Amino acid sequence: MMWNEEYDVVVVGSGFAGLAAAIEARKLCCSVIVLEKMAVPGGNSTISGGLVAAAGSPLQAEENIDDSPELMLADMLSAGQNYNHRELARIVAERSTETLLWTINDLGVKYKPKLSHLGGHSVARTYNTANTSGAGIIRPMLVRCREMDIPIRLKAFLHGLLTDDQGDLEGVEIREDYIFPNRESGVLRRIRARKAVVLATGGFSQDKEFRAIQNPVLTEQIECTNHRGATAESLILALRAGATPVQLSMIQLGPWASRDEEGFGVGSMFSMLAGFPYGILIDLRTGDRFVNEQADRKLLVDAMLSSGRESIAIVDEVGVRHASTLEQCLKRGVVRRFSSIEELAMANQVPLLPLKATVDAYNALIEKGRDDRFGKPMPKDLQPMTHPPYYSIRLISKVHHCMGGVRINTRAQVIRIDTNQPIGRFYAAGEITGGIHGASRLGSNAIPECLVFGRIAGNNAALEPTRS
Amino acid sequence: MMWNEEYDVVVVGSGFAGLAAAIEARKLCCSVIVLEKMAVPGGNSTISGGLVAAAGSPLQAEENIDDSPELMLADMLSAGQNYNHRELARIVAERSTETLLWTINDLGVKYKPKLSHLGGHSVARTYNTANTSGAGIIRPMLVRCREMDIPIRLKAFLHGLLTDDQGDLEGVEIREDYIFPNRESGVLRRIRARKAVVLATGGFSQDKEFRAIQNPVLTEQIECTNHRGATAESLILALRAGATPVQLSMIQLGPWASRDEEGFGVGSMFSMLAGFPYGILIDLRTGDRFVNEQADRKLLVDAMLSSGRESIAIVDEVGVRHASTLEQCLKRGVVRRFSSIEELAMANQVPLLPLKATVDAYNALIEKGRDDRFGKPMPKDLQPMTHPPYYSIRLISKVHHCMGGVRINTRAQVIRIDTNQPIGRFYAAGEITGGIHGASRLGSNAIPECLVFGRIAGNNAALEPTRS
Repeated sequence: MMWNEEYDVVVVGSGFAGLAAAIEARKLCCSVIVLEKMAVPGGNSTISGGLVAAAGSPLQAEENIDDSPELMLADMLSAGQNYNHRELARIVAERSTETLLWTINDLGVKYKPKLSHLGGHSVARTYNTANTSGAGIIRPMLVRCREMDIPIRLKAFLHGLLTDDQGDLEGVEIREDYIFPNRESGVLRRIRARKAVVLATGGFSQDKEFRAIQNPVLTEQIECTNHRGATAESLILALRAGATPVQLSMIQLGPWASRDEEGFGVGSMFSMLAGFPYGILIDLRTGDRFVNEQADRKLLVDAMLSSGRESIAIVDEVGVRHASTLEQCLKRGVVRRFSSIEELAMANQVPLLPLKATVDAYNALIEKGRDDRFGKPMPKDLQPMTHPPYYSIRLISKVHHCMGGVRINTRAQVIRIDTNQPIGRFYAAGEITGGIHGASRLGSNAIPECLVFGRIAGNNAALEPTRS
Repeated sequence: MMWNEEYDVVVVGSGFAGLAAAIEARKLCCSVIVLEKMAVPGGNSTISGGLVAAAGSPLQAEENIDDSPELMLADMLSAGQNYNHRELARIVAERSTETLLWTINDLGVKYKPKLSHLGGHSVARTYNTANTSGAGIIRPMLVRCREMDIPIRLKAFLHGLLTDDQGDLEGVEIREDYIFPNRESGVLRRIRARKAVVLATGGFSQDKEFRAIQNPVLTEQIECTNHRGATAESLILALRAGATPVQLSMIQLGPWASRDEEGFGVGSMFSMLAGFPYGILIDLRTGDRFVNEQADRKLLVDAMLSSGRESIAIVDEVGVRHASTLEQCLKRGVVRRFSSIEELAMANQVPLLPLKATVDAYNALIEKGRDDRFGKPMPKDLQPMTHPPYYSIRLISKVHHCMGGVRINTRAQVIRIDTNQPIGRFYAAGEITGGIHGASRLGSNAIPECLVFGRIAGNNAALEPTRS
């Protein structure tokens, strides 16, 4: 085989998982390259909400919140309906705090001083990046890569995974100077991996053809929160190289996105941080609640879709203080402000009297300290919704995350389908892998997963013997 | 490539789908061989209950039941939660009656004179073979194969799918004189397919390692209704040859099997034909009903498992007349007979008074003609459960069917994952294929699926150009 270049470790993908792998491998003195098909680095990670779950964190200690990796694992298994590959999920939970601290102490990531309590988590355990975005982590990682002399080659499309006689990974073929999404663009080049290849290319939520094969409900019309590059071609290459597919049909819809903007936007964080925990979710036709607003995403989406109901989330002036994207939401018309429930009802065409009754009933539950009706866990600082102005957001479910992907073991090695053994010199981490989250990933568990397994992959890749 | 033998069409698997494909291909004057790894032909098909759904059948006309392929398709999509590959499901529904008539008129299959109404079907549309077993169809198919000079080679294990330079199927490598389950046994031989290979090797419900990768809830301890040969190796070979995996994590548990015998046994048919439609399902701890007994399998199993409840089904002397396996069930202790509800309650350790109240309430619903509580559709000939003796069966969920498998198109061609185009000369039919049933296969839909797509596969395989 003729090679154009060679490195010890070849990382494909420049999101959380890929950059974490690259940094770890470089730390162990490997030569490393990061390949990224898009014209900018960071993939989906950059546009994510920057939410990071950690069990047993310093902020939890400050806020006297009792948590443990065992509890986080239990939450993951519950949301995942026990489809989780438990030994992998356990590692994410166990290393969550250590990994969070790594982002703070090693990378210099800045977080807000208060935790969020996201749906499906038993306790508040979610850190928010200071800028409410995954870019708050990706940028320091890119800085670190520059400091460590890790090249990030943009517009480098993964065209092939190249294997040796034993079926072990030997390198990759790329299209250099690729112009997304033109699969014929760019120039073919071969890059050899003296130690290993790490695949960290994310999910396929934007691959409308592939996702519809796995879940035909997800037609082209269903919107998506992901960046346009979240397609399936690298997953397909991995499967062709012998990787085991796991739970590919488990594709998550986000229940919190706005009907009035494209993609993840600014509305999703508004719902996640304010509308759902502090406000209520309303069926437009009835004016009534219909679900525990803090349930995991799958339960919420199933409740929203099952009856074909259109929903809005409502929150008052006190609850809205938790919404870090409020100003942008208002500016873009994604969230609207009303001086009274009456105005809100009229503008949203919700029947007024039922809505008022719903708000009163909800406030009574808050006074009582327990949601007897849907079992919503109540934040400590939850107050009755009585303070105008009121805010509403119109919701629509959008494809958000692929729980399925290639099977890995606890060392992040990709597992061969016909032998159940690792494929030599082949690692994967992040959304390209399957099984960690089972049937439903909890919000703020993606970043821990990507960083934990990215680091494991980079570490183990670096420890592979060097090919001559 | 050196070949030991060659045929126009090579069929792998000797169940409903494989034999249907072989018969159709032979009809078109092809030379055909059927390969079967076990020492007996028929696979899972032989031990199935022999239930055949057909929309618009002669018995429906006799019984004045209004049905249509559209209604059958709607039932399939509803149970399948719209995960179904709809264009494939539609073909099963549309050709169901034609295929049933083929088994009667062409093969001479004998059916009972009355339809059954199975869970999840809107109407009674299920034929029962006269001997309450899939063998009632497999045996006439084997006779037909003999008449048509189609060899069925037993103990022939599929060791490899052999492709040509284009990746088209050219033949198979088998282990001849294989002794299940020893993968080293037998002698390697290569059989060329001048026209095509038809893969009809069934599901992987007995493959405890593979099924746990897709659904970790299905540990080794979970029992299975399938014959021991229902393992994943041929699916894995197909995926290695480029086939697209579809919904592999969708694995069905049967809610009707007996706790007191292994496998599918005789109890499953008792529950399906009598206990569920004519009787009630009882939570042992409460003595109460908890679900529509005629819901589809997934809803039933979810209801049974979600609370960890142990369940029994109860039916009286009138309802039990629909149970074609009653004598065997009583003989094996799978079903027990009691002269009164009191005795039944004591023997099963159900609280008596709640149980009596439940029976009374159920009888009141029957008098009323509508199950307001769970929406169970009531058979026309349903009578209040007041006629002793009473019968009970102890239930446990067992792995039963793999909805997932390889992707095919409407011509039964296997679709390549990296191009979304057919793999040349490669057909598949039956449980090895995925997507037709989505999240949950309805009872009595497997045989129509296998026969419809087996025949389509055989037909199209025979029409392939002959290799020189």
